[in-house]
Amino acid sequence: MARVIDRMLMWSKPMGSSVAQEEIDYIVSTIGSVAGDVAAGLHEPVFAGNEKFYLSDCIDSGFVSSVGEYVTRFESALARFTGSPHVIALTNGTTALHLALIALGVRPGHEVLVPALSFVATANAVAHAGAVPHFVDVSEDTWGLDAHELRKYLRAVAVLRDGNLINRDTERVISVIVPMHTLGHPVDMAGVTEVAEEFGLKVMEDAAESLGSQIGDVHTGLLGDLGVFSFNGNKTITTGGGGAIVTGNAELADRIKHLSTTARLPHPFEFDHDEIGYNYRMPNINAALGVAQMEQLPGILANQKRLYGRYEQAFRDDDRFTIKGERAGTSSNFWLQALLLGSESGIERNDVIERALARNLAVRPLWKPLNTVAAHSSSPSDATPVAQDLYERVVCLPSSSSLADKS
Amino acid sequence: MARVIDRMLMWSKPMGSSVAQEEIDYIVSTIGSVAGDVAAGLHEPVFAGNEKFYLSDCIDSGFVSSVGEYVTRFESALARFTGSPHVIALTNGTTALHLALIALGVRPGHEVLVPALSFVATANAVAHAGAVPHFVDVSEDTWGLDAHELRKYLRAVAVLRDGNLINRDTERVISVIVPMHTLGHPVDMAGVTEVAEEFGLKVMEDAAESLGSQIGDVHTGLLGDLGVFSFNGNKTITTGGGGAIVTGNAELADRIKHLSTTARLPHPFEFDHDEIGYNYRMPNINAALGVAQMEQLPGILANQKRLYGRYEQAFRDDDRFTIKGERAGTSSNFWLQALLLGSESGIERNDVIERALARNLAVRPLWKPLNTVAAHSSSPSDATPVAQDLYERVVCLPSSSSLADKS
Repeated sequence: MARVIDRMLMWSKPMGSSVAQEEIDYIVSTIGSVAGDVAAGLHEPVFAGNEKFYLSDCIDSGFVSSVGEYVTRFESALARFTGSPHVIALTNGTTALHLALIALGVRPGHEVLVPALSFVATANAVAHAGAVPHFVDVSEDTWGLDAHELRKYLRAVAVLRDGNLINRDTERVISVIVPMHTLGHPVDMAGVTEVAEEFGLKVMEDAAESLGSQIGDVHTGLLGDLGVFSFNGNKTITTGGGGAIVTGNAELADRIKHLSTTARLPHPFEFDHDEIGYNYRMPNINAALGVAQMEQLPGILANQKRLYGRYEQAFRDDDRFTIKGERAGTSSNFWLQALLLGSESGIERNDVIERALARNLAVRPLWKPLNTVAAHSSSPSDATPVAQDLYERVVCLPSSSSLADKS
Repeated sequence: MARVIDRMLMWSKPMGSSVAQEEIDYIVSTIGSVAGDVAAGLHEPVFAGNEKFYLSDCIDSGFVSSVGEYVTRFESALARFTGSPHVIALTNGTTALHLALIALGVRPGHEVLVPALSFVATANAVAHAGAVPHFVDVSEDTWGLDAHELRKYLRAVAVLRDGNLINRDTERVISVIVPMHTLGHPVDMAGVTEVAEEFGLKVMEDAAESLGSQIGDVHTGLLGDLGVFSFNGNKTITTGGGGAIVTGNAELADRIKHLSTTARLPHPFEFDHDEIGYNYRMPNINAALGVAQMEQLPGILANQKRLYGRYEQAFRDDDRFTIKGERAGTSSNFWLQALLLGSESGIERNDVIERALARNLAVRPLWKPLNTVAAHSSSPSDATPVAQDLYERVVCLPSSSSLADKS
């Protein structure tokens, strides 16, 4: 790992800073005092349960592909844990977002409201559905969609016509809002839902990062019309590659399952398909891994929360720094721990990141705001000062749950 | 399995037949004499090698997702076996077809020439790229694209204009031909390539079913501009879900890898993306399964060929029946064994299929011609009498390589 990081650092340009190297060293040492003095990954999975046993059993069963009992077991485990009446396991978070958008009625040429601060998959999935992401800003409080700004913005740029919300500039239909729970911290779903109701929009919750996070006693993903999880290797639990859609709507769940399996019509031997479908169902071998991971989820979440406590304590006494914590009325899964550098501190986040990487502490910034990412920079966008500010001031810290007890 | 089939048969309508039940019993008994007297699946995987060992090692490595050594090892094994300079392992055959079409320049609104006789994924992938499948007929000889008919058809319906081939009826650009190696039997690639050259089209080989099949000493997938394999659970080898693109073109290979991993630009920590990418890379855990499967591929292929020999012998003396064999100059992987009912035999394929399923012999027809499948029936199409005829007369037989020595 050290060699990879060394090689990567050669490509990056150091940025000037007015802060002494000693200050940067102090910050990185403080991170290291929590994450440990040897190499620490950003978010490494924990395989301490039945992973090998279930994989072996899956091989013995002969069913490793998209038909198999582990898929059903994984979906049931997710349903129990989240309280979702319906769960559909899919190949990854991006394909889950894609199918969820289609199921909610997103059509080619529509616009979908997406927070500027998210992993690019959120916007890509909109494009995969033939639609256009329309970026809006996030709030300083939640780091997710700012419902208040969104309402003001829609009142200014959009108009209701024949039951559709129309973007006055582009004349395109705006059909769905995609709130995303940034780094696992729940967004203001009450606010987003009110805006959705005012403008007649559907809500697809991007809960890719927030398995285990709740608002009150409702699991994230279940407060919108559909919710999406990811089980990529860097997530709280992993299936190698994997994702899922959760919903209380049986009809939507059936449609999604149908679309995910080539939209084949039930018949004992004929191959007929009533619409253009996909090959997005989770394979059984990946679900076997997922069943083992689900058994360990409570312990992993407890560790992620404990790790937060240790970072929070380490930085508590210096008011230039904030470790992102829980908002009142919500619980976070603390998927990625995040250090917010005070705007008056004069500390450049790249100085911290480069020094930490050189010490083999895997840190990173937030994502470049999507309205400034080349692939999506021609899409419509509100001004996004908060997304830009957080992008410039946040350092994501080593967050593997195994670090909870390290020193 | 018996209960599932019983339940499925309740949904299917028996068709009338002029042939006595004894005749049907004779055919099904002959199939059973090869496939064995107990339940036989259509194509069940063989896990007799290092599957569990590599899966366990993959868990120990901590890398189960889209970064990992097994992906590299699997790609190398495929490169060695097929002779392909470049291999990109992806989530499945459909996503591989999708990216291959994009990489070959298929754009929204284009048309892509697709054989009417194929699994629906071939046409779906065209739609996923925003293009329209345009169906053409197959040959009685290869069961794949009929190059001779294709040339006549294109001369009649298409015109070259400003360097593009234009469909006169729809005014859309026709950009790519997709020959598919039906059931593993190589299509006439020399003929298809000549047509492609005459009309300035790219060739994407759908080799989803033909791992192990060659034309002369060249592996299928390497005779067009790009080739695609599938490793779904029912294929010659499986990775649970999986696919791959093979090519001799380094530039196309790089572009495909880039598109398959969110089109992220190389940087030690920033997230920037220069085009709309996908999450289509094969996870390491699936590749671990693939590496074990590749080690067994020669044995599996030998068994598939031996099984062909046994079916061929069983039906040899009755000239109403033909077991699909190898065309001169080609070698087939015999992925799915196929019984062709003579057109004068008066035997209805559904009578055979329903009786065989009732005896727990997993048989099925070929796919409904894609120009008659609801999802694609509004797409442009040539007349497809051969595809329709084969659809009505072919019964795919139990083809698991483990049946080679059964009786």
